[in-house]
Amino acid sequence: MKNGILVPKFCPSIFSHASAVGKKEHAGPLGSLFDFHDETDRFGQETWEQSESEMQHVALNLALTKAGLSSSGIDAVFAGDLINQCTGSSFGLLDVPSPYFGLYGACSTSAEALILATLYLNATGASTVAAVTSSHNCTAERQFRFPVEYAALRTPTSQWTVTGAAAFLLGDGPGAYITSLLPGRIVDRGVTDANNMGAAMAPAAFDTLSRYFSLSGSSPSDFDGIFTGDLGYEGHAILTDSLSSSGFPTSNFFDCGLLIYDREKQDAHAGGSGCGCSACVLSSFLLPKLERGEFHDILFVATGALMSRKSLLQGNSIPGIAHLIRITKERNL
Amino acid sequence: MKNGILVPKFCPSIFSHASAVGKKEHAGPLGSLFDFHDETDRFGQETWEQSESEMQHVALNLALTKAGLSSSGIDAVFAGDLINQCTGSSFGLLDVPSPYFGLYGACSTSAEALILATLYLNATGASTVAAVTSSHNCTAERQFRFPVEYAALRTPTSQWTVTGAAAFLLGDGPGAYITSLLPGRIVDRGVTDANNMGAAMAPAAFDTLSRYFSLSGSSPSDFDGIFTGDLGYEGHAILTDSLSSSGFPTSNFFDCGLLIYDREKQDAHAGGSGCGCSACVLSSFLLPKLERGEFHDILFVATGALMSRKSLLQGNSIPGIAHLIRITKERNL
Repeated sequence: MKNGILVPKFCPSIFSHASAVGKKEHAGPLGSLFDFHDETDRFGQETWEQSESEMQHVALNLALTKAGLSSSGIDAVFAGDLINQCTGSSFGLLDVPSPYFGLYGACSTSAEALILATLYLNATGASTVAAVTSSHNCTAERQFRFPVEYAALRTPTSQWTVTGAAAFLLGDGPGAYITSLLPGRIVDRGVTDANNMGAAMAPAAFDTLSRYFSLSGSSPSDFDGIFTGDLGYEGHAILTDSLSSSGFPTSNFFDCGLLIYDREKQDAHAGGSGCGCSACVLSSFLLPKLERGEFHDILFVATGALMSRKSLLQGNSIPGIAHLIRITKERNL
Repeated sequence: MKNGILVPKFCPSIFSHASAVGKKEHAGPLGSLFDFHDETDRFGQETWEQSESEMQHVALNLALTKAGLSSSGIDAVFAGDLINQCTGSSFGLLDVPSPYFGLYGACSTSAEALILATLYLNATGASTVAAVTSSHNCTAERQFRFPVEYAALRTPTSQWTVTGAAAFLLGDGPGAYITSLLPGRIVDRGVTDANNMGAAMAPAAFDTLSRYFSLSGSSPSDFDGIFTGDLGYEGHAILTDSLSSSGFPTSNFFDCGLLIYDREKQDAHAGGSGCGCSACVLSSFLLPKLERGEFHDILFVATGALMSRKSLLQGNSIPGIAHLIRITKERNL
C-alpha cells in the first residue's frame, strides 16, 4: 500500500459527464466537442465569480440530464476550483442536496476529485458520486495576476487559464472505467518563476509517472496515450526530456494544456491551465475516444501548482503535485 | 446510503494526535492541555503564513513522535486551512513523502479530513492516514478582515480565529474510535452578515444533527456530549434554540469555539473559530477524555462558512456546512 498504486476493488465507470466552456475554448481545436459554450464567458451572470459557479452548475446538470438523473440522485459530490476559498464550487453546487466535499489541489483537482470519488464508492457502497471542477480566465487573472482590462503583457512561458467546467458521474453504468489510481505527493524543486508553472509542476508529474511505471512494471508504450494536464509547452518538454533521460519512451505523451488551444493561432502562449483544463479535455475528448473504442487504456495525470499569490510575493518556491488515474474501455483488463 | 449515515466496515482509531497553539490559546481554559505553544505566535518564522505552516509541521511531527513513527510511516495525508489556495498545508507538509489530498471546507475541514481519512482506510486497506488542519489569527485577520496592526473594532458577534494546528493519525492502535460519519451538505439560509459566521453556520449544524438523530433513531441525551465547532456564542444559541423548538434536549451541547477561550477575560467576543479551533479542542480535550474513559460516546460536528472576502463584497449570502463524526471509547458499541 505505502506510496503504492491503488487498485479499487470496485472499478467504477464514468457513466455520464459534460463540459461547459467559454469563447476561446470553443474556438480551439476541441471546440465542437464541448457540450455547452457561452460566447460572452458570462453564463448570464453579473460577476466573473458567479459565471464560474454557473459553469459548474451547467456542467453538472448536463451530466445529470444525459444520465436521466436529478441532483437528488447524487450520493456525494467532490468539487474544487482556483478561486480563494473555493467559492466557485460552494456557490455553483448550492442546490445539490448531497454531502459536499470541498477540495483544493490547484489544477490537479480534477484528478483528486475522481480519485476520492472512486474511493468513496468503494468505502461506502454509494451508487452515484459526482466530481466537478472549474476555472475561469477572468476570475483567475484578476486573482493571481492582473485584471484582464489592464492588458498586461504575458511572458512566453505563461499559461492561459481555461474558462471551463466539467462534471463526471461515477458509478456502475456503461462508460469508461477507472481501474488504477496513484495519488500524488508534494514535490518542490525550488522553482520560483510565477510565469512558468509548467516548470514547477513537471517534477511532480515525473515523480508520479516514474513511480507508476516502476510499481506497475509497465511502460509508456503499453498505453494508447498518457495525458498530463496541464503542464503546457514548457512543462511538457521538461517532463518528456526527463523521462527520456530515464529511459522511458515518450512518443505518446500529450498535455491537456496543449490540446485545448491552437498555440499559433490563439495566442495561448505556453498553453492552457486551470482546474477546468484537464477536466474539459477529459470529458470532451478522452472519454468519448474510450467509449467509442478508439482508445482502450490511457493514463490521465492532472498536475497542480500548490502556491498562492502571497506565497510567491513572500519568496516561496512553487510546490507541485500530480495525481494519476488509469482509465480503460473495459472494466476487467 | 443516500444522505445516510456512513458506518465504516473498519472503524479506525485515532491512535495518536497532537496540537500546537499560540499565546492566547495557551492562556485560555484548555491552555495546559495543548502539546506545544509559542508565546510569540511566530513559531520561529518570518511571515505569519510560514508560522501557520510551521504549526502544522510541529503538530504532525508531535503526533508521529508520540506514535514512534516518522513521516514515511504515513500512507496518505488529508489537510487544509483557511489561507488562499490552502498554502498553510501545502508548505507545512512539504516534507511528508506520502500522497497528499488538499481540502477546503473552511472551519469544517477538521471533520472533513477525518471523514475522508476514515473512508481512505476502508477503501484502500492503508494502515496509517493523517488528518491535519490549522488556522492562524494573523493570517486570517489580514486576509479576511484587516491586518491586526489596524486595531479595527470588532462587533460583538464576531469570532476570534484560533492560532492552532492539530494532527491526527488514524489506523488500528489503541485510542478512541470513529464509528459513524454523516458528511454535511451545503445549507444557505441567506445570512449576509460577515461579522456573524455563527448565524450563517448554525442552520447547517441543525441540518446535519437533526438528520443524524432522525436517521439513527438516537437522541442527544444518548451521548456524553455533542461538540460543535465552531459556532461561537451566537451560533450555539441559534442551534440549541432551533433544536429545542424541534423537541430535542440540548443540555449537553457544547461548542469548541466557546471552550477554547474565556469569553469574559479574553476579549474573544463570540468565541473561537478557524480550522484549528475544533481540531485543537478535539486533540487536547475531547480525545483524552475518551481515552481515559471519562467520555464513552460523543458527536463531533465541525462547521464551516463557505464564503470568501470577495463573495461577501459581491453581496452573496454565506453558505454553511457541518460534518458529523461519532467518536466512541470502544470500537464495538
